[in-house]
This record gives sequence, structure tokens and C-alpha cells, in this order.
Amino acid sequence: MDNFTFHIPTRFVFGKSAEMQTGEKLKELGLKNVLIVYGTGSVVRSGLLDRVKESLKNNDISFMELGGIVPNPVDGPVYEGIRIGRENNIDCVLGLGGGSALDTAKAIAVGIPYDGDFWDFYMDKATVEEALPVISVLTIAAAGSESSKSSVITKEDIPLKRGLNTEKIRPVLAILNPELTYTVPAIQKAYGIADMMAHIFERYFTNTKDVLLTDELCEAVLRTMIKSGSKMLFNSQDYASHADIMWAGTLAHNDTLATGRQQDWSCHGIAHGISARFGAAHGATLAVLFPFWMKHQLHHDVERFYRFAVKVMGIDEQEDHEAAAIEGIDKLRTFFDSLGLPHSLKTFGVTEDALPELVDDVKLNAEDKIGFFNPLGKEDILAIYKAALN
Amino acid sequence: MDNFTFHIPTRFVFGKSAEMQTGEKLKELGLKNVLIVYGTGSVVRSGLLDRVKESLKNNDISFMELGGIVPNPVDGPVYEGIRIGRENNIDCVLGLGGGSALDTAKAIAVGIPYDGDFWDFYMDKATVEEALPVISVLTIAAAGSESSKSSVITKEDIPLKRGLNTEKIRPVLAILNPELTYTVPAIQKAYGIADMMAHIFERYFTNTKDVLLTDELCEAVLRTMIKSGSKMLFNSQDYASHADIMWAGTLAHNDTLATGRQQDWSCHGIAHGISARFGAAHGATLAVLFPFWMKHQLHHDVERFYRFAVKVMGIDEQEDHEAAAIEGIDKLRTFFDSLGLPHSLKTFGVTEDALPELVDDVKLNAEDKIGFFNPLGKEDILAIYKAALN
Repeated sequence: MDNFTFHIPTRFVFGKSAEMQTGEKLKELGLKNVLIVYGTGSVVRSGLLDRVKESLKNNDISFMELGGIVPNPVDGPVYEGIRIGRENNIDCVLGLGGGSALDTAKAIAVGIPYDGDFWDFYMDKATVEEALPVISVLTIAAAGSESSKSSVITKEDIPLKRGLNTEKIRPVLAILNPELTYTVPAIQKAYGIADMMAHIFERYFTNTKDVLLTDELCEAVLRTMIKSGSKMLFNSQDYASHADIMWAGTLAHNDTLATGRQQDWSCHGIAHGISARFGAAHGATLAVLFPFWMKHQLHHDVERFYRFAVKVMGIDEQEDHEAAAIEGIDKLRTFFDSLGLPHSLKTFGVTEDALPELVDDVKLNAEDKIGFFNPLGKEDILAIYKAALN
Repeated sequence: MDNFTFHIPTRFVFGKSAEMQTGEKLKELGLKNVLIVYGTGSVVRSGLLDRVKESLKNNDISFMELGGIVPNPVDGPVYEGIRIGRENNIDCVLGLGGGSALDTAKAIAVGIPYDGDFWDFYMDKATVEEALPVISVLTIAAAGSESSKSSVITKEDIPLKRGLNTEKIRPVLAILNPELTYTVPAIQKAYGIADMMAHIFERYFTNTKDVLLTDELCEAVLRTMIKSGSKMLFNSQDYASHADIMWAGTLAHNDTLATGRQQDWSCHGIAHGISARFGAAHGATLAVLFPFWMKHQLHHDVERFYRFAVKVMGIDEQEDHEAAAIEGIDKLRTFFDSLGLPHSLKTFGVTEDALPELVDDVKLNAEDKIGFFNPLGKEDILAIYKAALN
């Protein structure tokens, strides 16, 4: 186990009708003037936006609105939100929706107090010194953005998808009502499950030794995701499974499961370009790429993949650890299939001639590699993309 | 899963030499004048107290000291700490040691700003409105006090052992260096393992339905405690197992594993009197009582005890769930035996004629019961005590 510091300042309000407590909780935090950032219709149609606004009004909290955020959120609305925030002396930014609304809210929160272009932070050209408090009211369990320190935005004119990681954007308050996720389309629920499982994979496949406790925690949550994920998908009004998945998605990405472990993040890194260039859903790209990433990385640590196969995928213990590990990876792919997830990059319109450009999009380190578990060079990335085109 | 709110404001600094960061971290929190509360010698002899003081001096933080806290901490030093704190304008209380030093630090932290007797809070005669920030530097993994909202103090002249639970005493900073626990005597390490496992049992045995995710989390940590607990006990310089156990003990008691579950706490409630009247170590009383508590409660929910037997104790799945459940409980007792823990109340000098008084000591609710899973009346408590005298 590596040395670590750990601090999750987020206040969680979880359960039925949780959104009705938004105003009261903001008042407790001394916040008075909110910018509400949301998507393209369902939060309006469902009445959720109205309920949140009512809760704010009941607690004498004023607000402005910025709607129309799209999946794989882009920079345009961020600039718009920064302008609105500055002109109206907004004191906090509330993301209402899924990862896209939340990531946009975070980008606005760092942009408002910054003199330069908010994109500087996503290109590692500047470090975040200050941010407005971020609040999340979640409607799609997936991205973990509701209590993570991450935000991913696509600069539309390039196009380039980049992530920012800073403690300054970790939400101070997360409102989680599993019932709000009932109406999410089944395929989007499936994307969410793939996304949150991938968040654990990025932490689980590590070189850090002596990590029994966090291995057990990661495996516990992955097993729950598989079990409750299937249940949720085929029982659209089942509170128990929607609640499990919503809280599991939060735990998957706020580092509770991964203290003292080196994390990898190479599969996310090679997935981003597929969304940026082909408009593919983030969770869908991870569902396609992760099994191929695993097979490519298998020989770096067969025992870790064997443990994954046995403990998470329920493969029987056996003498041939490599065969069992492969069986585990195949079973993961079969599980993703059962949720209706794609299993080839072709699904997104990717063709072989697009691969070199996708490889060039990947943000590499000074050694021209990405990741920490078994760092991928350009040839590795190309090999994974090619395998995933089958 | 029940609705819940969840907020762990504690900042954790975990790892080798973590205590050297004490001063720096206090400075970041704006704290300047510390009361250090510690035990009866080992933190002095080991040089730990000096290292912490050096770290404070290096960051221009002044301090006072209050040593001599004993296991099952009593009220005397609390009054002394409150006096010192008030006379010296202390702005935070740092517990340096195990649960006893930390629980005393918490009692002092609520007592300093309170006009009345701090004991009022422990007797439910007053509610904590204010407390000084509490800091923990842990040397014994056990009580979970390093980031819990609990403090247990014994009023020596009665004698009566009582707990206080309030968010106001949850430490703002917890410094956890597993190496500091190497020199804890083996039997005290064993008490610690029993104590932290008991913290999970009080959460695991619940009537709340649909708790798959938190069941999995509780089981993951319990399995780790069994595995790393044995390893730690017989390898006194093994960093990995000491680190697992230290962090597991923290997770066991800060509610990370137990969101949305009703908790029980009846076994802790009936154990306190054994410590108060017979000076028994807290963990030792729990090691003796929990298997008998489980057998007494078995028929309230055989399936839950079956799940415990299979998932935690590694009993094979079988048709006769009750037989397997009993096997699981017996295996827990055998595990405690293997750590050198006692398995009869006789060990503490308890005799049959002391039982009625012990029963009368237990703090019951308005219905003359204790707990929530299957509330115990006086006859139940007596039956468990009697069984544990064998």
C-alpha cells in the first residue's frame, strides 16, 4: 500500500425525494445565488427542474439557468456559463443531470474566477487556484462526477476531449435520488454501468503491492454492479438496484475504493478520441475497449487478471491461471453484450484508416506513453484499436 | 436501502512517517494552540510524542500536554483537560494514542466551550452545540475513534461507562502511520481486531432490506480483517497487514460501509458494563460476547447469519442454512481463540451473582429494550451473559 492522503468533503443527501432538500442544504452552506446547468429536455419535462427551483425559492435562494448541455459536453456552453456567472455574481454552480451537466458546471466553476481561458486548465497550461463551489443533482448514475475531482470537456473546433483533475471542483454537495434514474433509457443505463465499472478497472489494475483491503473493496463493488446492473436494466422501477448502482457509481470514482494504489487511466485515455471524433457515448467506448485493453495487458500480470476472473467474474479456480484469466475477460465481454452494449469500434463508424489519427489524439507523457500499470506506447494503442475493430 | 446523509469531513494522512506532517497539516487548518492528550508511557518512550512536538514547533504551533490517560478512560482527566484548555486558550485537542486518548480528547473538546458538566452529554441531559476541533494521531488500530463521531468515557465514582455520538467530535484530521502499531502487544492487537470486527457486526446485522452493496462492502472488510489480522499478529514488523488493519479499522467505524442501513449496537451496549465493573478490555468483552449474541439472535434472521457464515467465515454453501450459520458462528469463535482472545466472561472475574447488577447497568430504551435488529430485553441480556459464563 502506498502512502496516501484522503479527503472527501462532499455532503451526500441520498434517497427518495432527495432533490427537495436542495434549497435547505444550500442555505446551510451559506450559498445564495446559483447558476443551474442542465441538459436538453428531460429534466424540464419530468418536472425535476421545477422541483429544484421550488426548493431554492422556498429557501430564498436566487438562481440563473443554463440549459442545453449535450452528451460529451463541449466548450461553447462553458463560455456562456462563465459570462452569465460573472454578470450575475453567481456564488455557486449546480449541475443538474448526468456527467455532462456536472462536468460543464465544474468547468464554469473554475472559469468564473479565472482571468484567462478556462481551456488552459484542461491543456495543463494553468493550475486551478480557485473555483466556485459545485453542487450536483444527479439523474444518471455513470460518470461519478457527482463527487469526483474530474471534469472532461471537448473543445469543439479541434475536436479534442480533455480532462481536468483538481480538488477544487469536487462538489461540496451531492443530491442523489435513485428514482430520478428510472426513466433513463436502457442503453444509457448500460453505458453508465460500463463507465462506472471502468472507473474501478482503472484503479484495480495496478502495480502497487500489498493492496488486499482495496482489492476486496473494488471486487465487492464490481460484483454488485454486475448483479444490480442487470437487475436495474430489466426492472426499470426497481428501487433497490437503482439505489445500489447510483451509490456504487459514486464510490467507484471518489477514491474510497482506491486509497494507496497507483491508478492507470490508459484505457480512458485511448477512449476519449473515439467520442471526440465519432460522437460515441463515453460508456460505449469503454465497453468496447476494456476487454481488448485487458487482453493486451494480460501478460504484464497474469495473476492480477486471474484474481479478477475468480473474484469478480466468478470463474472457477483452476491450475491454468492464464486460461482462467482469458475466460474472465471473455465473460466480462459477454456481460457487456447482455446489457446491449456494443463490442466493436465499427459500431461507432470507426474504420482502419481512421486509426492513425486516433492514436495521434492520445495525450502521451514525456516518454511517449500513457498509463502506469503497463504504459502503452503508440504501437500498443494501435494494436488495441485494431483488435477492437474486429 | 434507507435514505441517508453521509459526510466524512476528516482529512486523512496515511502512511510511513505520517506523524511528521502533523504541524504542517494543523497550520493548513489555521490551528495554533494545541492540547496534546496521551497515555501512560509508550508514546513518550518510543519518541513519538517528541516527534509530534517537533513537527508542531517547526510550524510555530504552541501546545500544552495532558498525559496519563488509561484504558477504558475515566472522567478525571477530562475535567483536568477542560481546565487546562480554558486557562490556556487552546484552539484544538489532539489525541495521541489509541481509543482512550482519542475519546478523552473528544470529551475535552466538547467540555471546554460548555458551561455545564461535560458528563451531561454522555447522560443525554444536554446536546452538543459546539466543540473544539479534534485531531487524532493513532497508535493502536481498534476503536475507529480516529474518524468516528463517538466517544466512550467511564464515570469512575459510579462506575458507569457511557457513549456520546455527535458529528461535532468527528476529527478534522487523522494522522495514521501503521508502523506506530508494530510495538503494540499482541494481545492488544487481538483486542483491536475483535473491536473493529464488532463495529462492522453492529452494522451488518440489520433489518434493512435491499442492502447488497453495503453487505458486500462489510464482508470485504471483514474478510480482510480475518486474513490480515492473523498475519499482523504473527508478523510484528509486516507493514502490509498493519496497514490493512489500520485502514480497515477506520472504515469500520466511519460509516463508509454502512450507508442506508439501520444499525444495532446492542452487543456494545451489554459489553460496556463488563469493562466498567471488571476492568476488562473493551475488545476482549466483545470477543467473548459476540458469538453468544449471534447464537441468541440466530432465529430472528437465519438467512442473514447463513450469508455471514458463507461470505465472511468461508463455510461451504449447503442445504441446511441453520447448521451452516451455527458453523459460521463457531468458526468466528475459533478465529478469536486463534488470536489468543478469551472466550468466557469468567476470564474477567465475572461470576453468576454479578449478572443481575450487570443487566441493570445496561442503558435501555423507553420499551426497556436495547438494539434494533432484534431488540434485547433484560431476560435476553441475562441469557447471553449466562451463556458467556460457560
